Amino acid sequence: MLLLNAHPLGLEVSVFAAQSNDPASQVCGRAVLGSMEDRTDLRRYLSKLDAVTFESEFVDTAKLARCMPQNLHVFPRLEVIEGIQDRLPQKRLLDRYKIPTAPWREVSNKRDLSEVENVFENGFVLKQRRFGYDGYGTFVFKNGKADAKVLLKSNHGFIAEGFVPFKRELAISFVRSVSGAFVTLPLVQSVQVNSRCFSVHGPISHRGIKPLTQQFKKLMDDLDYVGVLAVELFDTGKELLVNELAPRVHNSAHYSIDALTCSQFEYHWRAGLDLPLPRVELKSKGFAMVNLLGEGGRVKLSYKPMGHLHWYGKFENRPGRKLGHITTLDETGKKALERALSWRKDFQL
Amino acid sequence: MLLLNAHPLGLEVSVFAAQSNDPASQVCGRAVLGSMEDRTDLRRYLSKLDAVTFESEFVDTAKLARCMPQNLHVFPRLEVIEGIQDRLPQKRLLDRYKIPTAPWREVSNKRDLSEVENVFENGFVLKQRRFGYDGYGTFVFKNGKADAKVLLKSNHGFIAEGFVPFKRELAISFVRSVSGAFVTLPLVQSVQVNSRCFSVHGPISHRGIKPLTQQFKKLMDDLDYVGVLAVELFDTGKELLVNELAPRVHNSAHYSIDALTCSQFEYHWRAGLDLPLPRVELKSKGFAMVNLLGEGGRVKLSYKPMGHLHWYGKFENRPGRKLGHITTLDETGKKALERALSWRKDFQL
Repeated sequence: MLLLNAHPLGLEVSVFAAQSNDPASQVCGRAVLGSMEDRTDLRRYLSKLDAVTFESEFVDTAKLARCMPQNLHVFPRLEVIEGIQDRLPQKRLLDRYKIPTAPWREVSNKRDLSEVENVFENGFVLKQRRFGYDGYGTFVFKNGKADAKVLLKSNHGFIAEGFVPFKRELAISFVRSVSGAFVTLPLVQSVQVNSRCFSVHGPISHRGIKPLTQQFKKLMDDLDYVGVLAVELFDTGKELLVNELAPRVHNSAHYSIDALTCSQFEYHWRAGLDLPLPRVELKSKGFAMVNLLGEGGRVKLSYKPMGHLHWYGKFENRPGRKLGHITTLDETGKKALERALSWRKDFQL
Repeated sequence: MLLLNAHPLGLEVSVFAAQSNDPASQVCGRAVLGSMEDRTDLRRYLSKLDAVTFESEFVDTAKLARCMPQNLHVFPRLEVIEGIQDRLPQKRLLDRYKIPTAPWREVSNKRDLSEVENVFENGFVLKQRRFGYDGYGTFVFKNGKADAKVLLKSNHGFIAEGFVPFKRELAISFVRSVSGAFVTLPLVQSVQVNSRCFSVHGPISHRGIKPLTQQFKKLMDDLDYVGVLAVELFDTGKELLVNELAPRVHNSAHYSIDALTCSQFEYHWRAGLDLPLPRVELKSKGFAMVNLLGEGGRVKLSYKPMGHLHWYGKFENRPGRKLGHITTLDETGKKALERALSWRKDFQL
């Protein structure tokens, strides 16, 4: 989707991909095949670019830094990605800006784990520091007792988060350009099923979003953050807690392709290339997005009217894998969601 | 734009292109390079497809027919393209359905030309029968006298059309699917400068459009026409005359990417693959599109807010060449057009 949104802007884009039938390669005439593990491949690819960005934060920033030509424009900066891809510095960053999150502790060994069991008596979640997403690398202990064997499941270390009783989950994305222009995309409500985003609808209003936006503006200015920053939130009924950050375009803002006059992908490119950031404008009063999560079966797409289908061209259909999404527009976010959910039933995945 | 709209539908698309940096190759990981003149290239390409369609009607239908595997699904059918790409059978087709056009005569030789000079005393236009577009192959004789040398300019023959005093130019597109579903895109007003489409805005209403739509529905049903059919019209103030047809997606409906919930490109794919055709819905009360026509200079794109930029990735900047377009949405078509025209000024082409 980054590439599909780059072409009409007149950018000559090239993607670094593992295979010629990767989703991104399919929509780019200038795909360069190679491995992220191979320094020669990386150097060859990076040497030809004016600017580079990422669709995933799970990159080896140290290796990338060694392979990059000196003046290559990288957005967001590698140091910023590094500080967010690891949950420990991410939590410390949020604490430093007094941005409320779920209570947390670092967990590197059995002693840390015992302490966590005492502190978070009402239950906690152990999350591996790196490479965790969609519930991978996350271990839930409802009764507040953990099996220490879980520590062997990752050699990146963990953080523990105390259970947060929340009313609903929300998400928001901020965009900051090279020269410091800043826009906020609409606040949305997300519904997670089995730790994966199932649906998003909006726009949502919450009085806590204004001060939070100011805090993030300060944080992004200080970090010289460039591009889209996605923020997942817990609404406890009293306050907004930050669940986690993603230094990239994000599933929770995929609705923006159809529901905003400028999509998150276009904002990301504009921010990185220091083009003006358009005012955020809705094309409809309400919108919703429902993910098309794989079920491991034979795929049968639905083509019912009105929903906007975005199929990603993935060939492997694993249960729970994000294979595409549909967006709907309506008078309210809830109405749009109802419609999207009913259309979702016509897909066999 | 056909390809950009095919990817999200989950179609595995491949383009046959002359060069790897052709606009279409840039947005397709499965570009197949070859020449439309080379039967081996064509056969190799066509043998791997389930279905094929065209972005231009200027194809050698006889050669294509010889190179096509027997059961390849081609939309629109080659016979239909053949009957429209040549202005003579196109005019005869419209006459057969009593669809009003500018008065016309076939012109193959000097004698025909003399006759035309007598019939169209108030002036006429000589148009070569094949391969004419954007004013290429069109010769205007305002005083009704032609130099017979012009007949040497094409070996495809000509038709002559008597001048039509018109109030404004309009355009409309119809879509018909394999199983006969039929939709009509909004009627729009187009402004031509130097025989090239400069801007389009809409929606426009005209009482003549309802009966015309019925005539075209009959025509398309009879021809088993599949895909988008674009119709350019003269509004004489009294009636609507058909100027010309294009058996494909068309510049006059490029606004549809941003202004309709389903673009003409998505309609074309859906029609050809016999998917349901969504109801036509506007995302905004008014819309406008302004073409970015080359001026032969050094290109400087504008990135002002709100306009949707669609840059085509063409490398050669010839004066008058269509290099891209911008779309705007507003309360009325006229307001959208004003805005688009003012933003157009920020581009240097």
